[in-house]
Amino acid sequence: MQDNHSIGIVAAQKAHFNAPLTLKSGAVLPQFELVYETYGTLNAEKSNAVLICHALSGNHHVAGKYTETDKNAGWWDNLIGPNKPLDTNKFFVIGLNNLGGCHGSTGPASLNPATNQPWGSQFPVLTVEDWVNSQAMLMDYLGIQQLAAVVGGSLGGMQALQWTLAYKDRVRHALVIASAPNLTAQNMAFNEVARQAIITDPEFHGGDYYAHGVVPRRGLRIARMLGHITYLSDDAMGEKFGRKLRTGEIKYSFDVEFEMESYLRYQGDKFAGEFDANTYLRMTRALDYYDPALPFGGDLSAAFKQVSAEFLVLSFTSDWRFSPARSREIVKALLDNERTVSYAEVTAAHGHDAFLMPDQHYHDILRAYLSNIEV
Amino acid sequence: MQDNHSIGIVAAQKAHFNAPLTLKSGAVLPQFELVYETYGTLNAEKSNAVLICHALSGNHHVAGKYTETDKNAGWWDNLIGPNKPLDTNKFFVIGLNNLGGCHGSTGPASLNPATNQPWGSQFPVLTVEDWVNSQAMLMDYLGIQQLAAVVGGSLGGMQALQWTLAYKDRVRHALVIASAPNLTAQNMAFNEVARQAIITDPEFHGGDYYAHGVVPRRGLRIARMLGHITYLSDDAMGEKFGRKLRTGEIKYSFDVEFEMESYLRYQGDKFAGEFDANTYLRMTRALDYYDPALPFGGDLSAAFKQVSAEFLVLSFTSDWRFSPARSREIVKALLDNERTVSYAEVTAAHGHDAFLMPDQHYHDILRAYLSNIEV
Repeated sequence: MQDNHSIGIVAAQKAHFNAPLTLKSGAVLPQFELVYETYGTLNAEKSNAVLICHALSGNHHVAGKYTETDKNAGWWDNLIGPNKPLDTNKFFVIGLNNLGGCHGSTGPASLNPATNQPWGSQFPVLTVEDWVNSQAMLMDYLGIQQLAAVVGGSLGGMQALQWTLAYKDRVRHALVIASAPNLTAQNMAFNEVARQAIITDPEFHGGDYYAHGVVPRRGLRIARMLGHITYLSDDAMGEKFGRKLRTGEIKYSFDVEFEMESYLRYQGDKFAGEFDANTYLRMTRALDYYDPALPFGGDLSAAFKQVSAEFLVLSFTSDWRFSPARSREIVKALLDNERTVSYAEVTAAHGHDAFLMPDQHYHDILRAYLSNIEV
Repeated sequence: MQDNHSIGIVAAQKAHFNAPLTLKSGAVLPQFELVYETYGTLNAEKSNAVLICHALSGNHHVAGKYTETDKNAGWWDNLIGPNKPLDTNKFFVIGLNNLGGCHGSTGPASLNPATNQPWGSQFPVLTVEDWVNSQAMLMDYLGIQQLAAVVGGSLGGMQALQWTLAYKDRVRHALVIASAPNLTAQNMAFNEVARQAIITDPEFHGGDYYAHGVVPRRGLRIARMLGHITYLSDDAMGEKFGRKLRTGEIKYSFDVEFEMESYLRYQGDKFAGEFDANTYLRMTRALDYYDPALPFGGDLSAAFKQVSAEFLVLSFTSDWRFSPARSREIVKALLDNERTVSYAEVTAAHGHDAFLMPDQHYHDILRAYLSNIEV
C-alpha cells in the first residue's frame, strides 16, 4: 500500500566527472563520481529544482523507498513528497551523497586511480566550499543553471549558506536550518574527541585500515555515542530515558544498567557497522573549517555583502549544539545588508535532532515558505 | 618564601582498617587503607573538624605543598589555609582519597590479600554511601565524633549530602557546591561514553591490565578529553580558545589545527599517564548510582525528612553539567522540611570548573558562612 503523500519507489543514479577538481586545500581529485537521487519532475524552464544538502552522516537517499517492502524511507521523507511541505508536485528535488562520503560518491574507500588501491589516508581533506563546487558541477550535469532553493540542516545549512556566497546567481532561496556561520570552540571540541577516538583506535592503521581487512569500529562507536548525546537536548534525554534501569534493579556492574546506556550502545554499534571512519573524520573537519567570515576579519556582515538570495533561517529552542543564537548571527548579518530573510525560532524539545522531526509548527513554516517560491 | 596564608608543608598519612566493610552492592572488602591529610589543629573539644570530599579525579592532597620547591599545591589550596575562607586557624581540615582511588587508598591497583595480585576487575563497584561509611570509620579512627562541616563540590557535594542523611548526628553543616541530588540522563550518558572508551580499549583486558604491564591509555585519554569539554562552559571555551589556530594557518589535516585541540590532547595525555582507569570507571558509576530519593519513590523532600544539619548550597550560572536548577532541587527539598539552608547562585563564566576557582564573590560567601560556624 502506498499513501498518496509518498514519493514511492526511488532509485539512485550516478554522475561521473572526468575533469580534475582542485580542492580548497590545494589537493586535486583527478576524477570523481557523485551518487544522487531526484524526486518530482524538472519543469521545461528548469526553474523548479531544489537541492538538499546533507549533514554529518546523511546521504543521497533523502526520500522514498528502494523497494515496496523497504522498511526505511529516506532520511527526510517526512518533509518531501507529493503534497508534503517540500511538495514534489511542484519541485524537482535533488539529494546527493557529498564528495568524500561512504554511500556511493567518491570517498576514502574508493579506488585511487593512481594506485588502484583504496584512497584511505591519501584521500584529501574536504571543505564545505569543495562540496558546493562539486554540487554546482552536478547541477551543470543535470542542466540546471539556477536552483529555486538549496535546503540544509546543520552541516547541510552551511552548504546552503555557501551556495549563496559562491554561486549567488545560481540560487534564489536558501533554507538554513539548525545551522551556524561557524562552529563554536565547544562544538569543535566534540569533533576532536570523536576524531581522536577513531584515530587512536589500533585498527585505524593511520587511515589505511582497508588494506588490513579491519575497520576502527571501537573509535567510530565512541564517536557516534558522543554525537547522539549532543543531538538530543538534556530535557529530551531526561524525558526519553531519565534514570530508568534496564532490568529494574541495580546490578553494580559496568554492563548496561540504565536504558540510556542501552540506547547509546545500540546507536554506536549500528553506526560503526555502516559508516566509514575516514568519511567521518572528513565530515567533522569540514564542519570545523567552515567560517565564511574569516576572510573578512570575522565580520559576517561583510561576508554577506554580495549575497542576493532570499533566506529562511530556522532554529530550535532546545538545540544546544547549534543554538538559536548562532542562527540569529546569520539573520543579523543578512539584515545588516538589507537582504530578505525570514526567521523562526521553533519551540521544540528534541534538541539538534528537531530538524529531522515532523513537528507540525516547523513543517507549517517550511510549507508556507516553499509554497511562496515562484517556479 | 612562604606567604602567611599558606599552610606550608604537609604530609599524607595512612589509616589501616582491619574490620571487613560490607558495601552497598553486597561485596565485602576484608580490609582497607585510607590515605589522608590534615591541616590546622583539632581543638580539645574535637568540635572544629571539617571533612573535604573530593570529586571524580581528586584526592587527599587538598591544600599545602609536599616540599619547599613543590610547584603544585593541593587542589583546593586557594580555599584552605590560615586566614583563607576555610581558615585553618579555626578549623581542623581533613582531606582523604576515597576508597577505590588511585592515590594511596585501597583501590583496584592494590593487592587483593586473597590472591596477592592486584584486585583489577575483582575490585568491587563503589557507591557514595560506601564512601561516606568509610569516611565515618576514618572519623572514628581520628577520634572525631561530630564534624563541624562536610564540604564537597560536584561528586564531593553528593558525599556531603549523604553525610547528612546517613550520619545526621555526626555533621552540623553541609556545604554542597556545584552538585545535584542525582545525575541527569545526559550526565550519565557522558559517563557511559567515557567508560566505553576505556572498556573497549584493547589494553583494558577486562580490567586486569596490571598483569599485562599495560594501561588503557587511549580510552582514559578520550574519557578525560570529553570530561574537560563538560567542565567548561561553551562561553568559557569560546573565550579561552575560540577558533584560534595553533600555527595561524589551516593545514588541512587531522593533526592539531586549533588551540583548543592542543589543550584537550594535552589534558588527555597528562591524565592518562597519571590516573587509574579502573578507578575512573568506579568514580563515574558512583556518580550514576547516587539517588537518595530513589527509596522514596523519587521524592527528595521525603528523603530529607530526617536531615538535621544546616546547609549551604552553591551553584554557578554557567555550569551546564551540574546546573543551578539541580541545586535548587536540593534547596527546595530542604525548605519543604523547614530546614536551615542558605543558597547562592554565583555568576561565573567557568562552568562546572568554577567550584575550583578563586572567584572573589564565591569565596566571600564561603568565608561568611564558615566564619559563622561555632566550634
